[in-house]
Amino acid sequence: MKNSNTPVRFAKSMEIKALRGFRDQYPAAMGPRREMFDRMRSVARRFNFQEMEGPALESLELFRVKSGPEIVDTTFSFTDKGGREVTLIPENTPTVARMFIYKQLELVQPVRWYSIERFWRYERPQEGRLREFYQGNFDILGDGSVSADAEMITMAADLIRAMGIESDTILKISHKDILRSLFASWGVDDPAPMFRAVDRLDKVGEDAVRQELAGLGLALERIQKLLQTVQVSGPITKTLPGLKGLLSAVDGLEETFERLERLGDLLEAAGVSDMCQLDLGIVRGLDYYTGTVFEAFDRKGELRALFGGGRYDNLIELFGGQPTPAVGFAIGDAVLEIAMKRSGSWPHWSGEPEFYLIALTDNEAAAAMALGTKLRSKGRSVEVDGSGAKPKKKFKRADRKNARFVLVFGEDEVREGKVSVKDLSTGKQVTVPQEKLLNSDPENLFDN
Amino acid sequence: MKNSNTPVRFAKSMEIKALRGFRDQYPAAMGPRREMFDRMRSVARRFNFQEMEGPALESLELFRVKSGPEIVDTTFSFTDKGGREVTLIPENTPTVARMFIYKQLELVQPVRWYSIERFWRYERPQEGRLREFYQGNFDILGDGSVSADAEMITMAADLIRAMGIESDTILKISHKDILRSLFASWGVDDPAPMFRAVDRLDKVGEDAVRQELAGLGLALERIQKLLQTVQVSGPITKTLPGLKGLLSAVDGLEETFERLERLGDLLEAAGVSDMCQLDLGIVRGLDYYTGTVFEAFDRKGELRALFGGGRYDNLIELFGGQPTPAVGFAIGDAVLEIAMKRSGSWPHWSGEPEFYLIALTDNEAAAAMALGTKLRSKGRSVEVDGSGAKPKKKFKRADRKNARFVLVFGEDEVREGKVSVKDLSTGKQVTVPQEKLLNSDPENLFDN
Repeated sequence: MKNSNTPVRFAKSMEIKALRGFRDQYPAAMGPRREMFDRMRSVARRFNFQEMEGPALESLELFRVKSGPEIVDTTFSFTDKGGREVTLIPENTPTVARMFIYKQLELVQPVRWYSIERFWRYERPQEGRLREFYQGNFDILGDGSVSADAEMITMAADLIRAMGIESDTILKISHKDILRSLFASWGVDDPAPMFRAVDRLDKVGEDAVRQELAGLGLALERIQKLLQTVQVSGPITKTLPGLKGLLSAVDGLEETFERLERLGDLLEAAGVSDMCQLDLGIVRGLDYYTGTVFEAFDRKGELRALFGGGRYDNLIELFGGQPTPAVGFAIGDAVLEIAMKRSGSWPHWSGEPEFYLIALTDNEAAAAMALGTKLRSKGRSVEVDGSGAKPKKKFKRADRKNARFVLVFGEDEVREGKVSVKDLSTGKQVTVPQEKLLNSDPENLFDN
Repeated sequence: MKNSNTPVRFAKSMEIKALRGFRDQYPAAMGPRREMFDRMRSVARRFNFQEMEGPALESLELFRVKSGPEIVDTTFSFTDKGGREVTLIPENTPTVARMFIYKQLELVQPVRWYSIERFWRYERPQEGRLREFYQGNFDILGDGSVSADAEMITMAADLIRAMGIESDTILKISHKDILRSLFASWGVDDPAPMFRAVDRLDKVGEDAVRQELAGLGLALERIQKLLQTVQVSGPITKTLPGLKGLLSAVDGLEETFERLERLGDLLEAAGVSDMCQLDLGIVRGLDYYTGTVFEAFDRKGELRALFGGGRYDNLIELFGGQPTPAVGFAIGDAVLEIAMKRSGSWPHWSGEPEFYLIALTDNEAAAAMALGTKLRSKGRSVEVDGSGAKPKKKFKRADRKNARFVLVFGEDEVREGKVSVKDLSTGKQVTVPQEKLLNSDPENLFDN
């Protein structure tokens, strides 16, 4: 507590800035972002997803379960005053798992949960990657069917549409078992390093990946087969037969191919197959995906993945719950903002007031307040300026705030129960009874 | 990263709970809270407040400016991996000041800003006080007029109405200069300890406060006058004359009384004076308030203050900006939730889907997806269940999820382009062409 009678202490606060990788969001940035979140919520509602939210701060232990001890290096983690090892949440699934397991017996499964909240990662900031960011997370827990996969991908497609980036965006879909079975057929015990090598194909090019795979002990013809496989790409239903032919020597993929075929049918029925393609190059870095995986990319290939998700049937069990199939995806706000801006779809910020009420002197302030209340009760956006500033200054403020209409209260207007209405877009002005303004569309006041 | 091929590591995650003072918000809790925030946003929009948002993590230094070095004791503060002293934000004003000052020259003043975000304080959790909480913050920067005070208090009253607690809530209003001038007239150099003593009147009772004031060296007759003053309470316009009489010997209060009189007039014009009263007992703990102060209480006096605010004309300057008058208030979600529940105004959680679509077998899943997409494009809330579960189980799920209508897709329905519609509230069922369902209010399908 600071005593107001102590001398004012001037801080050089111009030197205290937001931390690196953190954003100051002024209204012109926050308004469109709020619109982005509102659209996410509308999509979630259409697919009957329920909003939930865990704490922003959790035991670090919770995140070690999934990501191992090295998670501490990339998180804002610390020891709190009570001696607990805690961390700002870097992602959402461990909390979802914890909360799901805690109520697993009473929840009506399948559960459809979503959240839109902030996360924090101690990583080097770059374009589209910040230390503090928003992420929408959408998960279905307790349904292992292809239908659940299709619902999730359809929702992802609907979300892309809601953001106005559908013509610039493609959803690439794959299945973890395909490469896994391929490696198994070759007797590769630990395919993880090879997954990672293949995952870098776009970044480092084919030659570098060939070298890396050779270094990992993979024979030349197998490298060839692997690269052919991960370059399979096209409409799901049309592309599957060729893939089957390519991998005809690999055992145990019947069920996987059948799932993909059914998935293709359902996505077509849902009207989103134009936005989807089978792409075996999708080798999601997170090793915990267990089935269908998908990622959204811009069609030009200029941005890193817009978002990604997939099936992770082992996670709930990993956290100590009953075995529970699960599928979900996460979408960050920073990359999405870049994509929307490139597509010209970033929402227009409509922060201006509809009515800016000017009391010419203190004497008219009460009349302005009274009408302001009536306009607000009709849901209008109203700013009352009953300050001591000069009228000229008040008009300038209204203008700079892009008010739609200025309502002026002078001595005459107030005495007669009237108000002067000025349309700032046309400059026209008219004086009308206040009741008339309240009961009409203000645009119509200028007709005669 | 965890390799999925390593044996599953069972964590006893049932033992990993949310940290003390932090909440797990399941949909039944989060849904109404989202409704609370949406209502706050509607009110903000009506008063032309623009949403902004700063980072959740800031330099600790920023908070020392206002609150002194001891702020570290009550915050989640730590040294990050880059050696910076940082803190989870415990309140909003230092960030608002920082962001305002950084753009002070280009912003159109008066600025009307609001935010609804989470804050963190390392304090002992108790009812209505958590370590992590939401707070709505509303501020007008750059307007020192009574009109701005009135707009702010009117908005606070509108917010109380929007929460449905208006008949149980009272807004108490005072002005810091009254007691300050009274103390000055007695030559009290440092009134802060006396402010604090008076602030505890409700908690510890009159006798204890008298003792404390005597201990601080205040003469008996002055204690009497002080206690008389802080117990002044009633409708603003009606109560002011008595207060003026009581303090007729105190110099320099003319302007303050005039401001309060005008404030009373404006609040009456705005139609909120029924919810407001002058109450000199409002001695807001935060010493940085400089003029009008107000707090909302439940009329029964059972809860601590619901929220509070006031004028803080020194803050922007304290942070190194141009002198800027400011008025604002903050409202936390936890106490508000308690008040709304006591008033029976906590929003009903409407998390159920309107339509639960059941494909009786895999063969009908595509037809269900297709109709689901059409319903969703009309904005309906739809859950498609094309899982492999038995029909009986699917019906049970629909029932437990409180779906309004169940749509059943069997072999016959799909072949004929029809769907069976079941109203779960009446048990009635009817089979209709899918087109008919899409183009009518489903309730009307059961008429004949």
